[in-house]
Amino acid sequence: MPRLMKKVSRKAGLTPGSLIHIGEKKLERARIRAINYDEQRFREEELKTIEESLPLKEAPGVTWINVDGLHQVEVLEKIGAYFALHPLVLEDILNTEQRPKMEDYGDYIYVVLKMIHYDDKKNEIEAEQVSLILGPTFVLSFQERAGDLFDPVRERIRGSGGRIRKVGPDYLCYSLADAIVDGYFAVLEKLGEQIEAAERELVTHPSPKTLRLIHGLRREMILLRKSIWPLREVIGGLQREDSPLIADATRVYLGDVHDHTVRVIETLESYRDMLSAMLDIYLSSMSIKLNEVMKALTLIATIFIPLTFVAGVYGMNFKYMPELEWRWGYFMAWLVMIAMATSLYAYFKRKKWL
Amino acid sequence: MPRLMKKVSRKAGLTPGSLIHIGEKKLERARIRAINYDEQRFREEELKTIEESLPLKEAPGVTWINVDGLHQVEVLEKIGAYFALHPLVLEDILNTEQRPKMEDYGDYIYVVLKMIHYDDKKNEIEAEQVSLILGPTFVLSFQERAGDLFDPVRERIRGSGGRIRKVGPDYLCYSLADAIVDGYFAVLEKLGEQIEAAERELVTHPSPKTLRLIHGLRREMILLRKSIWPLREVIGGLQREDSPLIADATRVYLGDVHDHTVRVIETLESYRDMLSAMLDIYLSSMSIKLNEVMKALTLIATIFIPLTFVAGVYGMNFKYMPELEWRWGYFMAWLVMIAMATSLYAYFKRKKWL
Amino acid sequence: MPRLMKKVSRKAGLTPGSLIHIGEKKLERARIRAINYDEQRFREEELKTIEESLPLKEAPGVTWINVDGLHQVEVLEKIGAYFALHPLVLEDILNTEQRPKMEDYGDYIYVVLKMIHYDDKKNEIEAEQVSLILGPTFVLSFQERAGDLFDPVRERIRGSGGRIRKVGPDYLCYSLADAIVDGYFAVLEKLGEQIEAAERELVTHPSPKTLRLIHGLRREMILLRKSIWPLREVIGGLQREDSPLIADATRVYLGDVHDHTVRVIETLESYRDMLSAMLDIYLSSMSIKLNEVMKALTLIATIFIPLTFVAGVYGMNFKYMPELEWRWGYFMAWLVMIAMATSLYAYFKRKKWL
Amino acid sequence: MPRLMKKVSRKAGLTPGSLIHIGEKKLERARIRAINYDEQRFREEELKTIEESLPLKEAPGVTWINVDGLHQVEVLEKIGAYFALHPLVLEDILNTEQRPKMEDYGDYIYVVLKMIHYDDKKNEIEAEQVSLILGPTFVLSFQERAGDLFDPVRERIRGSGGRIRKVGPDYLCYSLADAIVDGYFAVLEKLGEQIEAAERELVTHPSPKTLRLIHGLRREMILLRKSIWPLREVIGGLQREDSPLIADATRVYLGDVHDHTVRVIETLESYRDMLSAMLDIYLSSMSIKLNEVMKALTLIATIFIPLTFVAGVYGMNFKYMPELEWRWGYFMAWLVMIAMATSLYAYFKRKKWL
Amino acid sequence: MPRLMKKVSRKAGLTPGSLIHIGEKKLERARIRAINYDEQRFREEELKTIEESLPLKEAPGVTWINVDGLHQVEVLEKIGAYFALHPLVLEDILNTEQRPKMEDYGDYIYVVLKMIHYDDKKNEIEAEQVSLILGPTFVLSFQERAGDLFDPVRERIRGSGGRIRKVGPDYLCYSLADAIVDGYFAVLEKLGEQIEAAERELVTHPSPKTLRLIHGLRREMILLRKSIWPLREVIGGLQREDSPLIADATRVYLGDVHDHTVRVIETLESYRDMLSAMLDIYLSSMSIKLNEVMKALTLIATIFIPLTFVAGVYGMNFKYMPELEWRWGYFMAWLVMIAMATSLYAYFKRKKWL
Repeated sequence: MPRLMKKVSRKAGLTPGSLIHIGEKKLERARIRAINYDEQRFREEELKTIEESLPLKEAPGVTWINVDGLHQVEVLEKIGAYFALHPLVLEDILNTEQRPKMEDYGDYIYVVLKMIHYDDKKNEIEAEQVSLILGPTFVLSFQERAGDLFDPVRERIRGSGGRIRKVGPDYLCYSLADAIVDGYFAVLEKLGEQIEAAERELVTHPSPKTLRLIHGLRREMILLRKSIWPLREVIGGLQREDSPLIADATRVYLGDVHDHTVRVIETLESYRDMLSAMLDIYLSSMSIKLNEVMKALTLIATIFIPLTFVAGVYGMNFKYMPELEWRWGYFMAWLVMIAMATSLYAYFKRKKWL
Repeated sequence: MPRLMKKVSRKAGLTPGSLIHIGEKKLERARIRAINYDEQRFREEELKTIEESLPLKEAPGVTWINVDGLHQVEVLEKIGAYFALHPLVLEDILNTEQRPKMEDYGDYIYVVLKMIHYDDKKNEIEAEQVSLILGPTFVLSFQERAGDLFDPVRERIRGSGGRIRKVGPDYLCYSLADAIVDGYFAVLEKLGEQIEAAERELVTHPSPKTLRLIHGLRREMILLRKSIWPLREVIGGLQREDSPLIADATRVYLGDVHDHTVRVIETLESYRDMLSAMLDIYLSSMSIKLNEVMKALTLIATIFIPLTFVAGVYGMNFKYMPELEWRWGYFMAWLVMIAMATSLYAYFKRKKWL
Repeated sequence: MPRLMKKVSRKAGLTPGSLIHIGEKKLERARIRAINYDEQRFREEELKTIEESLPLKEAPGVTWINVDGLHQVEVLEKIGAYFALHPLVLEDILNTEQRPKMEDYGDYIYVVLKMIHYDDKKNEIEAEQVSLILGPTFVLSFQERAGDLFDPVRERIRGSGGRIRKVGPDYLCYSLADAIVDGYFAVLEKLGEQIEAAERELVTHPSPKTLRLIHGLRREMILLRKSIWPLREVIGGLQREDSPLIADATRVYLGDVHDHTVRVIETLESYRDMLSAMLDIYLSSMSIKLNEVMKALTLIATIFIPLTFVAGVYGMNFKYMPELEWRWGYFMAWLVMIAMATSLYAYFKRKKWL
Repeated sequence: MPRLMKKVSRKAGLTPGSLIHIGEKKLERARIRAINYDEQRFREEELKTIEESLPLKEAPGVTWINVDGLHQVEVLEKIGAYFALHPLVLEDILNTEQRPKMEDYGDYIYVVLKMIHYDDKKNEIEAEQVSLILGPTFVLSFQERAGDLFDPVRERIRGSGGRIRKVGPDYLCYSLADAIVDGYFAVLEKLGEQIEAAERELVTHPSPKTLRLIHGLRREMILLRKSIWPLREVIGGLQREDSPLIADATRVYLGDVHDHTVRVIETLESYRDMLSAMLDIYLSSMSIKLNEVMKALTLIATIFIPLTFVAGVYGMNFKYMPELEWRWGYFMAWLVMIAMATSLYAYFKRKKWL
Repeated sequence: MPRLMKKVSRKAGLTPGSLIHIGEKKLERARIRAINYDEQRFREEELKTIEESLPLKEAPGVTWINVDGLHQVEVLEKIGAYFALHPLVLEDILNTEQRPKMEDYGDYIYVVLKMIHYDDKKNEIEAEQVSLILGPTFVLSFQERAGDLFDPVRERIRGSGGRIRKVGPDYLCYSLADAIVDGYFAVLEKLGEQIEAAERELVTHPSPKTLRLIHGLRREMILLRKSIWPLREVIGGLQREDSPLIADATRVYLGDVHDHTVRVIETLESYRDMLSAMLDIYLSSMSIKLNEVMKALTLIATIFIPLTFVAGVYGMNFKYMPELEWRWGYFMAWLVMIAMATSLYAYFKRKKWL
């Protein structure tokens, strides 16, 4: 069960801008990869120290520096100094409990997003914070751990023909955001399959396990909502932002991502509706099942209790009980009892209780 | 049961603008029909290759090219090249999981809508994506399969007298949107009938089948909402769009369609309210029914259990039990038992439990 | 039970502007009444043919032409031609499934409203569509059947003293809208009385009939909402509309009607809240009642079952059962049984189950 | 139980502006009190006829005329004539079913508010309509009955030192509105106490009485909402109104009242949330209680029924029943029965049903 | 259980601006601390009388005067006079039932916030009102009691290196607001832990205690909402306020606090969703548990009641009962009974009731 909220309070009261990594340490050592490209050239290297990235800032073409792992605060401090980032930006990159947002600092645009993927082993959604910084010639990206959602983008850069090699860092930034949003679809599909499985189970053989399944899915929806709703604002903000860093041609593409985020939200909301409809159905199925069992009890008990009474009557030991002496008394008792059972049965049948 | 969400994730990470058909292949071969008309002339033909449509782009009057079937990507690629469509538009036409939207690309307006109809055989709603492209002299329409909702529009074009022959492609585009929205009314009528049938069943003889019916209808509402709500935005956007492609005279007609979509939405919402009211009623009907059965049990059991006890007492084998020796003991026992039954009955009657 | 939705789909696909009457035929023959007045003069006549209204259009003063009954399409066609109405307006007048709306066509303003009244005989709300057309010197009104809600307005015109005779057709139009909104209050009062009656029943003797009553009222609310909410937009739109057809002095009066519609909506919403609160109460009353019956069963059964067991024990036929031979065995058995009953009773009492 | 809606329909169809008092007659005779003051002077008198107020309109300083009782229509007619009020204003003052609103008529501002107080005797909220008219040198106030909420304001005017004596009628008008809003706090406190009492009852000994209490409180909330929500609009409207009648210095004070109304609304909404949370708790408490009783029944019945069966077996009269002849048969029967009871008890204990 | 609403009505009707302390007296004696600093200098002193603060107003650098304890009205009166505060501001500082708000008085900005912390001893949330006044060279802060949330800010001022020493009072004001918002996170973490604990309890062993826990948490959410929602408006207002008192550099930091408040709200809302999901689960768990117990009863009772009947039959004392004389009658009776029990058991098993 994922935690509802991580510990952030130990930071309370510190100077704003103090660099402290909040979150789990998910990687042993920060890994820095730099890609520099333009339409003709392409260079990719893994940096050992952050100082190596220094010349890249001034290099022609587009530079993309990707940092995996955030716990080495000194790495971030140096990058912050080289690229002249605001102290609050550095603080937000390190605080992995950040809300998705977009901020225009003039020289660069800072974007925080949540990247999610479904961990099939643990059977739960994993969220990771991704920070993007879009400058005039560079894009910096910070991930909590080495992920593979950005690999297709790298692939497209390596292939020399694509649009991505012809245009600026804003398009690269869009491509990364697009990859992240595509990750949401993959997770929603997984959830959709689970909801459908739960629905089938609900129809065929509802059980308390189904209830726990539904509850688990609702819980995931509630947590997912918190990262999905701000996503739309962020992408919409990027699209509308009146900044020279974003070319008009790129805005069309951002509009496309924006549509995707809206679809993600609508899908999520329809899942929520579906789940609460399923909960209603589950509860009433359960009550109907109890109903049936109760009716069976009613039938059997209500038919036998009067018969038992009759048997009890003729089991009494009174000295003077004329029926006991009759030749056909026993058979008459049986007749009486069968008549009672039959008429009760007919009564229930007529009342449609059977 | 229609799927909650189709597979789109296999596309995740591809270059934006890569043309891949997402959705089921619903037709063997794409079918291309072209109509060219103005007030005097009218020509309709079925194209074998998409190249034949080339001269139509330059032809005088209004040209309407309708493509049924989307899986032949090369057809779309050629059309995209001839009519200079943006790569994202082509991608969206092929991705049948698109959210209804309207985008103004300057030279043309791109509209995505969902066309629905009720499949009486499968007893479920079928949705199909329709893409419309409105240019200065042409309308392109892309359907997933050959539908008949557009036939009345074709009929009106063939008939020479109507307004449609006198005005431009914007009015044709409006007519197609109008036909699609009319399709929603037909489906809502079907659903309305089903709701009324379920309501009648609910009043006369509620059963678990009714519950499943209500659940199925609610599920359809949830899925329908996802295509209906954006519909309003799309039509409203078309009406307000400040584009030379849409004449002012046509805006009045678009306003009319807009009113229809609002009515569709309100009808859907009132259906939802109705269904959740019906679910409440169903659940309470069920509990009332159980109530009645329980009360019958209560009555019969609660009356006979004490009597059985009395009979049990006089079935004991104690040596010294004075009552057993009495001449009228047996009759007195009967009297006691009848008195007990009668007073319990009267008590229940007075308490209104009967 | 009023229908959820009338058949409109048979119209689907027709040319927009084709005149087809959608709705029930509620009157044998259309009835046309014309009133022409100014501060000094007043003339009222019943027209046999619509052609007679022709000179009235040019007549000095204010002209009010009222048409009861819509199924005679040719009547409407002629009026449309005389007064130069847009084809969509004529279509909307005939389609009685129209959503309330207001449209400014420059030369005239077109208003659609729903007029409701409570039919005491059928015990249900009847809705009727009223179309108003406000021109520079005339008001046209179209009703589905001869109603009496407009009679007080006619009365006020006949009386020579009122403000209505001194001002233009906009004030007449306002008076008609005001009369329609007043009709809503009358219906809401009826519903309020029914809700109060249901509430009294709920408190004194809730029964499944109460449930059906509450459900029926909720159903009516859901249908009523669909005509009431747009009403506010319509009146608010009229008030704000920047048209020379509406004098500023009249806007104050329209503001008053607007306040009334807001009050109608708020009353409806508070009724809805009330009804859902009542449903909660009903369901819990029912469960409490079942509760009580169950507890009575519990008590009686739980007290007698152990006693019956004791009686059963001494009804066994073992050869060696010392108690059976005791002189006071029978009385001791009674003592044991009475002690058991008393202690169970005391236990239940202490647990507050009684 | 307060009525859901008062009769207003008898007014339907009358000329707008016709003066008819709608509401109960709460006072025998209208009482008119006039106060005229400026920083130096102060004069207070009770007027016998409305004509006496005539010179006050022209008097220097601020004049406040307060009318208690609305059923004497002629009084109002005269005031309307003296102060040149719009006929709709007069009509609205008399119609005590008015929705709170604010209207700027240029020469004066017309404000309708609902004044509420909690009637401890009847144990219900009483609402009364207050109309305020703010002119350049005067304030007119109309109450349905003589209330005491305005007395503190009078007191402050009598005391010569306060700010109220130094500033214009807008500040007086603000003071009256402030007094009315303070009245809401007093009522909300009463309701808060009742909710807390109901909550205590809910925790200690929930009973159907608690349910009725909760229902009654919810009902009051629903009715209260109808007068509270518009209140905010009215005060906010006054604050923003661009009228020379309201000095900028007074706007700060109106902002303060506005904050109070927002707090009133938030308190009401949190009460509503609280009450619906309490209803949930009540219903589940009830079901838990039933649960416990049911379990006790289960236990006792399920333990004794098998024992009774065993006793029944050895009560059979077969000729050849070997156990009956055994020396220790009776004791063995007891052993069997005790073993059965104990193992059932242990089973239930292990299952945590006890 | 915290009170729903404190008594404010005793103030009703007083002159606006009359200084009365509303709230509990939480401190014996007001404590006044003054800090004056600029980049070089730093002076901190505890004032005995408020007069000592007089020279500080004119002192160079930034002055922060903090008052703990509000019941000494005369202290506030003097401060109000020295710093020329509006009477309404003074009144609001004293009324601790104020709604969080921000007001720009030109010369200074007045901000009211609620500071909360979780009292581990009482196990409840404690709220305290904090008023901040931001002037051109000073910040005044008023607390109900000596808190420690501001201590880290003091620490940062004492340390000479931080940004806080280099910039103006707006940054100090931001730091205080930031400290308050951080306090909300700490409380939300506590609540999050409690919710998770309740959720674990719900899954492992739900009991009425869990229900009370959930209800208590929901209640706290409802009360918390009232102070959290306005918080966002206040901080957002400060950020947007077009006042020379707030430097542009500080707006970035305020934006950061604004993001935090949005995250606080979203967390609270997701807690609410979670709690209502948990309530659903609790109720259905309870009903499932009852279900199981009921089924056990059903099984045992329904199996034994027919057997008891059979035993009763052969306990009858009729003279002529052939079976009684049979040699193997008794064993046959056992066979019959075992067959009945087995077939009932098999029937229930097949029906999946076991």
